[in-house]
Amino acid sequence: MQTIVTRSHNIFVRVNRLNRVWSRYHSVLTADKYPSVKRGDYATLNENDISKFKEILSTGAGGQLLTDSDDVAAYNEDWMKKYTGQSQLVLKPKTTEQVSQILAHCNARKLAVVPQGGNTGLVGGSVPVFDEVVLSLASMNKIRSFDSSSGVLKVDAGVVLEAADMFLAEKGYIFPLDLGAKGSCFVGGNVATNAGGLRLLKYGSLHGTVLGLEVVLPDGTVYDSMHSLRKDNTGYDLKQLFIGSEGSIGVITGVSILCPARPKAVNIAFLGVDSYENVTQCFSDAKTELGEILSAFEFMDRDSQVLAAQSLKTIHPLCEEDDISAIESVPEYPFYVLIETSGSNKEHDDAKLEAFLEKALENGVVSDGTVSQDESQLQTLWTWREGIAEASQQFGGVYKYDVSLPLSSMYSLVEAVKERLIKLDLVSSEDKSKPVVDAVGYGHIGDGNLHLNVAVREYNKEVEKALEPFVYEFVQQHQGSISAEHGLGFQKKNYIGYSKSEVEIKMIKDLKNHYDPQGIMNPYKYV
Amino acid sequence: MQTIVTRSHNIFVRVNRLNRVWSRYHSVLTADKYPSVKRGDYATLNENDISKFKEILSTGAGGQLLTDSDDVAAYNEDWMKKYTGQSQLVLKPKTTEQVSQILAHCNARKLAVVPQGGNTGLVGGSVPVFDEVVLSLASMNKIRSFDSSSGVLKVDAGVVLEAADMFLAEKGYIFPLDLGAKGSCFVGGNVATNAGGLRLLKYGSLHGTVLGLEVVLPDGTVYDSMHSLRKDNTGYDLKQLFIGSEGSIGVITGVSILCPARPKAVNIAFLGVDSYENVTQCFSDAKTELGEILSAFEFMDRDSQVLAAQSLKTIHPLCEEDDISAIESVPEYPFYVLIETSGSNKEHDDAKLEAFLEKALENGVVSDGTVSQDESQLQTLWTWREGIAEASQQFGGVYKYDVSLPLSSMYSLVEAVKERLIKLDLVSSEDKSKPVVDAVGYGHIGDGNLHLNVAVREYNKEVEKALEPFVYEFVQQHQGSISAEHGLGFQKKNYIGYSKSEVEIKMIKDLKNHYDPQGIMNPYKYV
Repeated sequence: MQTIVTRSHNIFVRVNRLNRVWSRYHSVLTADKYPSVKRGDYATLNENDISKFKEILSTGAGGQLLTDSDDVAAYNEDWMKKYTGQSQLVLKPKTTEQVSQILAHCNARKLAVVPQGGNTGLVGGSVPVFDEVVLSLASMNKIRSFDSSSGVLKVDAGVVLEAADMFLAEKGYIFPLDLGAKGSCFVGGNVATNAGGLRLLKYGSLHGTVLGLEVVLPDGTVYDSMHSLRKDNTGYDLKQLFIGSEGSIGVITGVSILCPARPKAVNIAFLGVDSYENVTQCFSDAKTELGEILSAFEFMDRDSQVLAAQSLKTIHPLCEEDDISAIESVPEYPFYVLIETSGSNKEHDDAKLEAFLEKALENGVVSDGTVSQDESQLQTLWTWREGIAEASQQFGGVYKYDVSLPLSSMYSLVEAVKERLIKLDLVSSEDKSKPVVDAVGYGHIGDGNLHLNVAVREYNKEVEKALEPFVYEFVQQHQGSISAEHGLGFQKKNYIGYSKSEVEIKMIKDLKNHYDPQGIMNPYKYV
Repeated sequence: MQTIVTRSHNIFVRVNRLNRVWSRYHSVLTADKYPSVKRGDYATLNENDISKFKEILSTGAGGQLLTDSDDVAAYNEDWMKKYTGQSQLVLKPKTTEQVSQILAHCNARKLAVVPQGGNTGLVGGSVPVFDEVVLSLASMNKIRSFDSSSGVLKVDAGVVLEAADMFLAEKGYIFPLDLGAKGSCFVGGNVATNAGGLRLLKYGSLHGTVLGLEVVLPDGTVYDSMHSLRKDNTGYDLKQLFIGSEGSIGVITGVSILCPARPKAVNIAFLGVDSYENVTQCFSDAKTELGEILSAFEFMDRDSQVLAAQSLKTIHPLCEEDDISAIESVPEYPFYVLIETSGSNKEHDDAKLEAFLEKALENGVVSDGTVSQDESQLQTLWTWREGIAEASQQFGGVYKYDVSLPLSSMYSLVEAVKERLIKLDLVSSEDKSKPVVDAVGYGHIGDGNLHLNVAVREYNKEVEKALEPFVYEFVQQHQGSISAEHGLGFQKKNYIGYSKSEVEIKMIKDLKNHYDPQGIMNPYKYV
């Protein structure tokens, strides 16, 4: 018997829905916020287009076409309420053939298109800017096949990540990707954005685990490499181009992915650490001591835990369990670390973790800690890491930065940003006249990936100017990446030069033109 | 203290050298063997070109230019002695800048170029067909940097794989790729051909482990993504295009790769198995029981062991250790399995392996077996798997097929080929008038990758016709790949249609034209 580990993300879904309802009354159009972005030379939808789309979606399995402004609203807005488009048409095809016909028509007519998955993106990549047609994959949500001897799963792009993982759990397998939005995000969107998430440390990136894709190119051509082969050296590995392409050169409609056996034993340790240096030392020790069973190494600064405590309203893992007065309070350790182990033998894993923790406490690398005793505790401990995203949003909005940096200088970005916001007198956790509540840092130490969340009471040009390009310049100076896993989308389109050379940008633009000469796919974004 | 595991490949190097010397007196030109292949519309080398190349190679660190036919001979011939080109010029630059200037000149003049690494390829991809200029990376062989906290290694393309791994061993890390030719092949060539090898089961493919590349494009442009970031979602992942591109769109000059911690404990079990069904059952059980420490699962049929015994002239692992009369004899089990475990805790690993073997012997999945007791035994056991490549070559030549197939039907290809060769009266292990000695099967069960070696007394059109396209048709019928890890090269250029659709082939050709409009890079091969 094995322990099946799935974490529910109902909170995320709920917050997401509330945000959407709320935002319909408060949102400012992206086009108004960024007046320098002009609508491209695209055709405007007409009655003939609508008829054509209706015709396409009446074939075979059918499909949905939404034009009512109330129905369309949710597809125009991202979940951070930061970006709001003006699309008047949402298409929800059910088959790859329908997607192909839709794109062929859009290409012939030069109608701009935004492919949309679960719309959980954090850089405004999945919502329209002007009147682009929204092509939602929500109705393509079937698990196509699973081979229990090889672990190869084939799914439609619109399958929800958590649904795929729950299906696999029953078969003794695990999806090699996990992230906070798993209850809403789609597998196709995960691949299109090359999502990284919480299991990358153990299972590697989607560039290694995805075996094949089905993609509809802008002219309607269907590229199909949905095979089950772990090795295939016949020609360029074309699917790689679409992993992380953010809908800019095609629409992913199917995914074939290699899933590992579900670990029989999972442990979580939640630790208090007294300096950032000790966080990195702890990681180095964990790699050595825990070796092949180390499956996640996450860190959170104290301020991120303070936000989480205000939002979760449960007792922090390092407070006394039954001290109700401790709700919303967080111990004084400046940093927290969450370590997950996943292995095939509980006894061996427990022994490794115990030995590691004993040593870490003894030599002072770790100051305090708790270990999950059961499945429910394990889920609770994870909420103190996964809950930070929602917690950062609770005061009205959040500026999110997701960067790769060398481990040694990673946290100094958070310190530099805090200092800058204080100097500009923009921040206060109590004074509600200040736009910023706090700037917090957390993320995937194991992947060199920092999340910097600037929790705000409102989106505000002054704050944005204080942060950008300051954050990007810092990352460039430290040879990092301005987007570790969230992608470029609308937010970072103009900042790619901070992470890519002129040669690379030219090569990227050339490929975009090669596959999408009309520029209809997800315009105003990416590159 | 940890056990450092590196296997010597002196045998390979020696055989390789002998082959080359031998072949200079026996080889038939590729152009004569395949008269339907015509020289392309390329310029012919002249004195001005030679002067220009001399000038380029006299700058900076210098470099070598070979025109003497004796010096050039080894670069014209592959190690199987199957393909022989007619190049009159070998360039051995020492810097990326020199490679850039060389390609810019070749592109301007429309001179055809063959990039060459360690020249250990098995599909004729690294030697000229006509008079292409050979661009050898042999003089670019420096380790550029290593970061001991992240495990990121940066090397010149010409660093020998074994040299890289030995360097890493001293630092407590391991190269995430291992293959029989490691003593001769170059890291750049490994990446250019997307080599798979023996550790893929544990560490995944190069598409996941390579973090960045330095590549000189056909027009001399240097594409540089030699960073150390595990995550970077800013634009298309361009480096992926060059992984497995076989020198057709650029020359890889540098590689940045993520190396895992070297396992502290390595065990090998060598097992006798009485049916192919039990081989696959054994794999399924090993995945469950050994979990995260399973690092290789290789299988060999009995005939492959008979060839190996004749070549190695040592006692087979499943014969009595001190029975000298057993040299060249092999027990009667129809299949053999080699299992490697790599982990961070010897005690835990031993316990897992012991429990697995006990169960496997008890339920009859495995019939006999031995486990390595020390480093030297471990190396000896591996020679019975790695020695098959050379052993297949010992009678004069070998037709090698490297395919991906569904596990259940994998071995039936070997059976079908044996049957066909017998029916056509082409095979005998004793009668030297028959061209074929034997057809043997072995490979990476864990990756669904079969190697089929047809050992021959001479290369022979009748044998080739019996095998091709028969093998490719079989693979196509079973939804496999005609090249799992060896690549397309010259051998399989015309057979890509057995594994790729028309849409895919068109996309591949379009990319080739996009990056190499003059077609100067490694012509007559790949696509």
